Amino acid sequence: MEICLKELATRLGVTLLGDGDVKVTRIASLTDADANSLAFVGHSKYRHALARTAAGGVILGEADVSLSPVPVLLSDNPYLTFARAARILHPDPPVVAGIHPTAVIDASAQVDPTAWIGPFSVLEAGVQIGFQVYVGAGCLLGEGVQVGAESRLVARVTLCAGTKIGQRALLHPGAVIGREGFGFARDGNCWVRIPQIGCAILGDDVEIGANTTVDRGAIGDTVIGNGVKLDNHIQIGHNVEIGENTAMAANTGISGSTRIGRNCTIAGAVGVAGHLEIGDNVHFTGMAMVTRSFPDPGSYSSGIPAMPNTEWRRNVARFKHLDELTRRLKHLESVIEMMNETTERGNS
Amino acid sequence: MEICLKELATRLGVTLLGDGDVKVTRIASLTDADANSLAFVGHSKYRHALARTAAGGVILGEADVSLSPVPVLLSDNPYLTFARAARILHPDPPVVAGIHPTAVIDASAQVDPTAWIGPFSVLEAGVQIGFQVYVGAGCLLGEGVQVGAESRLVARVTLCAGTKIGQRALLHPGAVIGREGFGFARDGNCWVRIPQIGCAILGDDVEIGANTTVDRGAIGDTVIGNGVKLDNHIQIGHNVEIGENTAMAANTGISGSTRIGRNCTIAGAVGVAGHLEIGDNVHFTGMAMVTRSFPDPGSYSSGIPAMPNTEWRRNVARFKHLDELTRRLKHLESVIEMMNETTERGNS
Amino acid sequence: MEICLKELATRLGVTLLGDGDVKVTRIASLTDADANSLAFVGHSKYRHALARTAAGGVILGEADVSLSPVPVLLSDNPYLTFARAARILHPDPPVVAGIHPTAVIDASAQVDPTAWIGPFSVLEAGVQIGFQVYVGAGCLLGEGVQVGAESRLVARVTLCAGTKIGQRALLHPGAVIGREGFGFARDGNCWVRIPQIGCAILGDDVEIGANTTVDRGAIGDTVIGNGVKLDNHIQIGHNVEIGENTAMAANTGISGSTRIGRNCTIAGAVGVAGHLEIGDNVHFTGMAMVTRSFPDPGSYSSGIPAMPNTEWRRNVARFKHLDELTRRLKHLESVIEMMNETTERGNS
Repeated sequence: MEICLKELATRLGVTLLGDGDVKVTRIASLTDADANSLAFVGHSKYRHALARTAAGGVILGEADVSLSPVPVLLSDNPYLTFARAARILHPDPPVVAGIHPTAVIDASAQVDPTAWIGPFSVLEAGVQIGFQVYVGAGCLLGEGVQVGAESRLVARVTLCAGTKIGQRALLHPGAVIGREGFGFARDGNCWVRIPQIGCAILGDDVEIGANTTVDRGAIGDTVIGNGVKLDNHIQIGHNVEIGENTAMAANTGISGSTRIGRNCTIAGAVGVAGHLEIGDNVHFTGMAMVTRSFPDPGSYSSGIPAMPNTEWRRNVARFKHLDELTRRLKHLESVIEMMNETTERGNS
Repeated sequence: MEICLKELATRLGVTLLGDGDVKVTRIASLTDADANSLAFVGHSKYRHALARTAAGGVILGEADVSLSPVPVLLSDNPYLTFARAARILHPDPPVVAGIHPTAVIDASAQVDPTAWIGPFSVLEAGVQIGFQVYVGAGCLLGEGVQVGAESRLVARVTLCAGTKIGQRALLHPGAVIGREGFGFARDGNCWVRIPQIGCAILGDDVEIGANTTVDRGAIGDTVIGNGVKLDNHIQIGHNVEIGENTAMAANTGISGSTRIGRNCTIAGAVGVAGHLEIGDNVHFTGMAMVTRSFPDPGSYSSGIPAMPNTEWRRNVARFKHLDELTRRLKHLESVIEMMNETTERGNS
Repeated sequence: MEICLKELATRLGVTLLGDGDVKVTRIASLTDADANSLAFVGHSKYRHALARTAAGGVILGEADVSLSPVPVLLSDNPYLTFARAARILHPDPPVVAGIHPTAVIDASAQVDPTAWIGPFSVLEAGVQIGFQVYVGAGCLLGEGVQVGAESRLVARVTLCAGTKIGQRALLHPGAVIGREGFGFARDGNCWVRIPQIGCAILGDDVEIGANTTVDRGAIGDTVIGNGVKLDNHIQIGHNVEIGENTAMAANTGISGSTRIGRNCTIAGAVGVAGHLEIGDNVHFTGMAMVTRSFPDPGSYSSGIPAMPNTEWRRNVARFKHLDELTRRLKHLESVIEMMNETTERGNS
């Protein structure tokens, strides 16, 4: 959409410096921007590009004002202001109400007349679809599934029976929510499957990445709090609980019955064992291996960063003897202490 | 379903203590249970909840009998008895025979009249569907696929050409079985794809999690034994063989041509390199990095558990010099030995 | 298909030794081969099988010629010759032109008359499908998607709006290309989604594995170069660029804005952090944790290989004190140096 900088500044609650009648239609990087683009300076390392930008306007902080050749939207938090501006310039497409003729919808399903149900989607008995919900092509919503207002299932999302989704949620293709969790009892060498009778409950403003899976609870539910953001390929085991606004990057897995607090950030490819308690404001760095509870806020890490293969081989070979190495050091310490005592006695 | 404790005890082969006419309809946790619920005590830490439970009945072992305020199903293995009771109270939904009118089924496919084929499923030439098989919505079964009796494809399962599935298998949404494996020969800097002409063969009672992939063999087949249980997001490479009753947790990957024995448990996010031999009764803990064969039974581990980031940074920095550290220690040892010899010679 | 060895040798550009009129119809391993099979010796460890093979012909190198009981296709690079022979004997099935009556195709989409569009596929506005493209069952191609000549979408592939695919690409079931990347700005404890207005651009001869995801760019595009091969369950973040002929094994993840060079090989379950520069001809071994740029060619590794659990526990416990251990060693070194100096002064 097209908007003038004056109006944009007002909607964003920031100060305009320069010509407010300039119109912008899109966001762009400082270097790719043209006269119709709005750019931003998120980091001082981009200052050199600022001086040469051809943008129609630029979002930046106090420190960079003097360097801008173009009108400025002055913000205390340029990145956040940029995010909001981007949402104004590039709004989600409106939901056009309707039901595609190929969709298969059970007679007992309730679809709000403002919602869209796409081609080849299946809504089973008792499904409830709220105001302006978008159900893209090839989605499958099992018995009793509920989807709250303004949520968007992009395409090919599977919501198994009993799943509940809050408002304004965003679910990407290939996501599978509420499949029966992985629970077995051992019977000799065989496994007896334990029926999983809980559900998966997702709050408002939740985002679920492509091919991410959230299993239903065994007894009791799997609960994803409001504002939780999950990237692609994430696995959430049965009966996991995730607090509000916690975000996880791709390829991470959370094992069954673990509880994760609010406002946590969990980087990519992290593995969290089952039945743990992770507190609020906990941050795990990439590929961290979480085998115990971390109730306290803080940043936690593990793993060995990559190094040249030959160097790694030598160090890894030593790691296998680290316990022995420590014992040898301890032994040396005691030998030297004895030698010193002897020397001191000799000297005294 | 509703069942009285007396009948349940008989079907489970356990001893009933207390009123056998009590009827239960569902399983529940000790704390959530009402008069219609059957609960269980799987671990002594739940004993305090047992004393206060409102369950209609409870499954437990000898040690906890005296603490139960309600009728008891006494078991040597409460967890296994619970699993079986749960299957009685919460049976899989029956398969209602039929073919949804939107399914696309090749004229040469053979579908048992007791099976169900869901909406938007595609069965290509020569597909064979057995007794009471459930093929959910949006499944794709390629040429010549065979599915054995009472197997259940929940929804959106892809079985590529030639895949064979045994009886009573359970496949979750997004599973892709039998895609062409990842095999290339190098031609200068380019890659020449090698046709993958084997198949993927899955035994009886196999479970395949959501979005899990099992590649077809290059030459010869990929073989998943009876009773194997795979969680979500698992990757099984071409020509892998997995023995009976081996179970793997989510996000694990097995590289091509590796053979894994029977009754193994492989925890989450484990990586197993290609062309290895893993014996029977091998257990890998979470995130283990398996780079050599482990023919013998046992529990094997690797990885560094997470710790506070500052602590981790310091230790990792030292790890890069672990080889050097070991050499320095060795040098000190020899220096001290010489010093001691000198001292001893001096003293003698 | 059936072909005589003489013709095969000509097409492969290799030397035939023995009866060129022998006809073969398939590839097979040395041990499974029958008179209609073509086998190969890729490694000297298979020589014993060569002497007993019943194959119609065998591909091998100079060193093994004398051991073959059957006609030989003599090659400098038997594996590459085998790959090419396999493609001749097992060609991709021809694309039969047509559009399945259940496909939903926007009036503005352009489908080449030689292409195939499978059942339950959806082509939105402005989609362009090239010469002999195969779009399997259940694919979803969003607005403006372009697919180049002879590319094959096996089934259930999702190409989000604006995605461009080159020629001869191969995309496996469950792949999701061009979903909106994972980008948020923090607003207090909440997250503000940043619209992702770039696209995903895939070159010629690209292969994308089952359930692999490639996110669209935030500003600017995500770019996958010609000849790149991605295995299953791979995550490519927004604005990543991957150079020509780079190959990645399953379960690997590349975080946003990282640039990877040409001719790299990245093994399974590798994690690469964001905003890094990886040069040409870089090789990461399995489960490597890549937290810094590696501009130079070479092989890089990390991780601790699995060992018996008890051994691992002991070593890991020591790892947590590795910094302290190093300091203690350093202290000992200085103590001993002092002792030596004292001794030397004493001796002098």
